[in-house]
Amino acid sequence: MSVIEVPDPSDERLADYVRLRDVNLRKSLEAEHGLFMAEGEKVIRRALRAGFEPRSMLLTDRRRHALDDVLDSVDAPLYIVTEDVAASLVGFDLHRGALASFRRRPLPAVDDVLRGARRVVVLEDIVDHTNVGAIFRSAAGLGIDAILLAPRCADPLYRRSVKVSMGAVFTQPYTRLDDWYDGLQPVRERGFGLLALTPGAGSLPLAEALDRAGRDRRIALLLGTEGDGLSSHWLDEADVGVRIPMAGRDVDSFNVTAAAAIACYELVRTVS
Amino acid sequence: MSVIEVPDPSDERLADYVRLRDVNLRKSLEAEHGLFMAEGEKVIRRALRAGFEPRSMLLTDRRRHALDDVLDSVDAPLYIVTEDVAASLVGFDLHRGALASFRRRPLPAVDDVLRGARRVVVLEDIVDHTNVGAIFRSAAGLGIDAILLAPRCADPLYRRSVKVSMGAVFTQPYTRLDDWYDGLQPVRERGFGLLALTPGAGSLPLAEALDRAGRDRRIALLLGTEGDGLSSHWLDEADVGVRIPMAGRDVDSFNVTAAAAIACYELVRTVS
Repeated sequence: MSVIEVPDPSDERLADYVRLRDVNLRKSLEAEHGLFMAEGEKVIRRALRAGFEPRSMLLTDRRRHALDDVLDSVDAPLYIVTEDVAASLVGFDLHRGALASFRRRPLPAVDDVLRGARRVVVLEDIVDHTNVGAIFRSAAGLGIDAILLAPRCADPLYRRSVKVSMGAVFTQPYTRLDDWYDGLQPVRERGFGLLALTPGAGSLPLAEALDRAGRDRRIALLLGTEGDGLSSHWLDEADVGVRIPMAGRDVDSFNVTAAAAIACYELVRTVS
Repeated sequence: MSVIEVPDPSDERLADYVRLRDVNLRKSLEAEHGLFMAEGEKVIRRALRAGFEPRSMLLTDRRRHALDDVLDSVDAPLYIVTEDVAASLVGFDLHRGALASFRRRPLPAVDDVLRGARRVVVLEDIVDHTNVGAIFRSAAGLGIDAILLAPRCADPLYRRSVKVSMGAVFTQPYTRLDDWYDGLQPVRERGFGLLALTPGAGSLPLAEALDRAGRDRRIALLLGTEGDGLSSHWLDEADVGVRIPMAGRDVDSFNVTAAAAIACYELVRTVS
């Protein structure tokens, strides 16, 4: 790896790192170049361990030796910039002092992700990158076999998702469904019971529904949008609605991150 | 309730609502006047239903009739302001258009909160208001009997906590320990088993520890700081360390909100 000091924030070689908080700019830039950003030494190391290839890495001069131990194994330039250059480049103080731009890999086929999987989570339209990151962190930590994303679900490799997931997006198997309307069909065809998480009337307590399904069943748990939950179409597609039992107390729902954590925990606990 | 149009953002009657995002100002102002803020119609209604007394309420003129149904039961002024006045007062666009300032109540004694409780959560030093709000929402939703806060734990009635909790902080029984060092003593004296949530070596899977404790045991679950977890002193004070089983996959911890949700779920599921 070559180590290069770059004094000018408008240097073309730093283009991957420009205006990290400009969501629209970043979305188009990252899609166009097939890249994603990792932030902080810990997360960068996890991306490397997971086999992602860096396009480049960037350290502030105070932290210039922070990644010395991985340099030999990395075939990409390391740019060293001052903290001022970093701030004017990315648009905020880069306290952690470490960024890297990685190549995306093509997402696997649905079939490949579902092969051998028994505990699957399907995210319909979680639009908030923080929530997607947090759900991946819980799912990976608990050992969910695969996550499927509806077409409009937020990108797990967007900077904020990566950061909140602490890099769990690198190791959690997942892919995206091509289609929303018929998206659950391949999951059902592969023998999965479809459980829709919904506080609606008529839903079964999650643990009870999983017990009924049996320990050796393949289960796909459907989670809906932050505000409105699952679409009525996906609710119709599901075999059964399930809920996390609530205590009353003038609380009528969980936040989606908490609900996902509990549901993944119960799924892993019950289905082996 | 009197309805009063206030055209001037520097009007003293609006002083409760000034610069809502200025954390330090708000902390001192709210402590000095013994008030807290509720944001959005839904959360304001929940505060009223929970019996909190408003000092005043504030609506933007477009939403001036949004709380008409509760006005008769409220003995406090309702201020109507333009959206511009609201924005210059609070420091951001007040999209939801509804704020209320409520009187705090004295926190109950530890004894009162623990009386009859079987499932208790103790938060050591959760410093982030978002996390405190999210934990209260999960705990209240699941039916945790009481939450105890260490002296340095963030304030559940701070605006951001209230908002993230969706008002669960109004119905979830809780109080604050006077003391950190000896804070767990009154809990132990009341017959609670102290379970410390920690991924450290030697901890038992949470479900196993709860099974061992038995269904009729009183359990207090200790949760530590976002970054470093529980202090070594509280770990020493606990009867046993417990963990949420993890799958490997280069993920070494859960986010505290997810961990708390899972732990509260397991606690309520196991201890009746």
